[in-house]
Amino acid sequence: MLLEKGVRIMKIVEGGIVAPKGFKAGGKFVGLKKKRKDLSIVLSEVPCDFAATFTTNKVKAAPVVWNQDIYYNHDKIRALVVNSGNANACTGQKGYEDTVLTAQTLASYINTVEQEVLVASTGVIGVPLPIDKIVKGIGELVPLIDDDVVSGINAAEAIMTTDTNIKMISIKINIGGTDVYIGGMAKGSGMIHPNMATMLSFITTDVAIDKNLLRDTLKEITKDTYNMISVDGDTSTNDMVIAMANGMAQNKLISSRDENYNAFYEGFLYVNKYLAQEIVRDGEGASKFIEVTANGAKSKKDAVLIVKSILTSSLVKTALFGEDANWGRVLCAAGYSGGDFDPDQATLYFESNNEKILLLEKGLPVSFNEDKAADILKNRDIKIIIELGQGDGTATGWGCDLSYEYVKINGEYRT
Amino acid sequence: MLLEKGVRIMKIVEGGIVAPKGFKAGGKFVGLKKKRKDLSIVLSEVPCDFAATFTTNKVKAAPVVWNQDIYYNHDKIRALVVNSGNANACTGQKGYEDTVLTAQTLASYINTVEQEVLVASTGVIGVPLPIDKIVKGIGELVPLIDDDVVSGINAAEAIMTTDTNIKMISIKINIGGTDVYIGGMAKGSGMIHPNMATMLSFITTDVAIDKNLLRDTLKEITKDTYNMISVDGDTSTNDMVIAMANGMAQNKLISSRDENYNAFYEGFLYVNKYLAQEIVRDGEGASKFIEVTANGAKSKKDAVLIVKSILTSSLVKTALFGEDANWGRVLCAAGYSGGDFDPDQATLYFESNNEKILLLEKGLPVSFNEDKAADILKNRDIKIIIELGQGDGTATGWGCDLSYEYVKINGEYRT
Repeated sequence: MLLEKGVRIMKIVEGGIVAPKGFKAGGKFVGLKKKRKDLSIVLSEVPCDFAATFTTNKVKAAPVVWNQDIYYNHDKIRALVVNSGNANACTGQKGYEDTVLTAQTLASYINTVEQEVLVASTGVIGVPLPIDKIVKGIGELVPLIDDDVVSGINAAEAIMTTDTNIKMISIKINIGGTDVYIGGMAKGSGMIHPNMATMLSFITTDVAIDKNLLRDTLKEITKDTYNMISVDGDTSTNDMVIAMANGMAQNKLISSRDENYNAFYEGFLYVNKYLAQEIVRDGEGASKFIEVTANGAKSKKDAVLIVKSILTSSLVKTALFGEDANWGRVLCAAGYSGGDFDPDQATLYFESNNEKILLLEKGLPVSFNEDKAADILKNRDIKIIIELGQGDGTATGWGCDLSYEYVKINGEYRT
Repeated sequence: MLLEKGVRIMKIVEGGIVAPKGFKAGGKFVGLKKKRKDLSIVLSEVPCDFAATFTTNKVKAAPVVWNQDIYYNHDKIRALVVNSGNANACTGQKGYEDTVLTAQTLASYINTVEQEVLVASTGVIGVPLPIDKIVKGIGELVPLIDDDVVSGINAAEAIMTTDTNIKMISIKINIGGTDVYIGGMAKGSGMIHPNMATMLSFITTDVAIDKNLLRDTLKEITKDTYNMISVDGDTSTNDMVIAMANGMAQNKLISSRDENYNAFYEGFLYVNKYLAQEIVRDGEGASKFIEVTANGAKSKKDAVLIVKSILTSSLVKTALFGEDANWGRVLCAAGYSGGDFDPDQATLYFESNNEKILLLEKGLPVSFNEDKAADILKNRDIKIIIELGQGDGTATGWGCDLSYEYVKINGEYRT
């Protein structure tokens, strides 16, 4: 994996979420899914500050409600427990009590209170959580929790639903002479009948940083990463991103946007962007990874609207699946995005593997080499670039194509 | 076809757009498509008032720009000329000149000025209009224009792209003792590589009505009909609805919202709603026709947002293709719609052929008869009803499922 331009002292390391000092984890099969691991725990030796972003869906699963309460009303946390196989959504008061019992159970094993335990769930919706299996499972998993690489992998595996690969990363950065680690794991758009795509991403770091600064930073970064990806445009009841920071790197506390903050920011952005992109790469039925960039928009807001509209257009997505250089559909999607621009100034390129082809110049189609276009579109990773020539608003987002396989995965009978 | 409840004196008649007095039409193959008819003309003996709604896409095809100019700056019209096979979009100044020449050519044959001729195009985007074929074709088509049923069918056939059937209707209503006719033809979401779905709908009527009242009425009706249908969420560069009223029925001029207006309104709504629904029934690759109703929303705006979000959710659409009673995806789509509601008060039904099944009651799943659900979902026409219990906002919209066939039609190579 190449490091991105502009990142200072940064190194990819092993371990994922257990790479940062003081973090342990584990994952185990406890009987919520048929065979695969379905319970995951992440634990910090010492109390952590945390930042989080939650689904904006009006329909919120019980663990989202629980975590939001802790976010606004409590202080530090010690642990996170995640189950896959059941979303604990649309499960009423009993569902909420099950989430509380999950937190209480883990709290009792690690000698803390339930308000120091965050909970996440993903999987089937509207079915009561098999809470007995979770309570028993926590008891079995706690002794296995460790800080070795295998434990980090097990934890990342146990949050998967229909993901086809484990999504994890860890990096080492240098902040004012001190080594600081950031790790992460995520799950993407997997479908458990009759559920919807859920995105979960969990970050650990041993950095010492002011809590509010960490929270602001995660919010900002979410806008440019998780909020700029789209698999099918559906926002789940369970989506969440949580970042835990325990301060054990013992760097000088970062409390303002100084040089040390910048070093942390770049690493933190790198980890979150990597996980967001991995989620899209592994989108349901995806055969292409699409990056869309809008440059020269009147404002960033216009650029974001245009990028998202192109990424979510079924007509653009099916054209890319069909490897068709269909600039008309791209321009059309930009046109109905709500973003302001002058179509007569729009210029459009497709790009892959450093081959770039001009399709539209200032609103008019350009005759292009069909063989070269076919060569570009054969690749898995394709970039679409639209230059609007109206200002300096810019945005980039990531998505995937719409394939037969997507319809198959999501059209299968629930029973 | 059954008449809707509440419609007074109304009868389905033959003829489509030539049913109203003083309207003639014709359709012919002039060489824009491979074999099928591709040029259509609608003509009124006397000057007409007209109403119109146009695509909101920033990227507007040349005929949209032409018609908008006439809408705002001129008065009556005499005719409409439509070509299929080429959208005349993204064709620059030359494209606009081609549209003007199209209008001028028809105007010269019918002894009027080009400002009395509206133009519409649908088909391939970014390719110059074969204007010579159109100019020659108009000359050949004008002598064939007539007011018999076959001419009405020919006109409706010539505006189709990949539509699988002709969409036309005509009704007779009684306004204050006078027979008044309303006719219409439409084309739906057909795909001509490398083009996007385009919706065109043309209404003729011999009613005598104040121009501004007709325009206001079409705007209102569009909100509840054409703007409440969705095939794939993409808004084309060429969409338009045009209603021509020539007054030849000689009813007492309708100039306010009185009883006579109400009789016209009901008939006009019926025709527009019928055509809007036909467009969705014939949506690309559609195997199901879906009606979504939200009742009891805090406001109409909330209800509309919720209905549209459910109709356009890829997860809901694939579930219906798979005949899966997946209420979780429906509730989830309502949840991220932006419409305000309390999920704990939401109640959800699926219905078909007068069989109705309760799936969710006040936010909690209800155990239901799987056989009955399967029976309902086997049908082609399926209704989804969500009761929100928050107020009296209500909305209904129509859409279709997302099938393998949709991906096939739209993912095919352009060349």
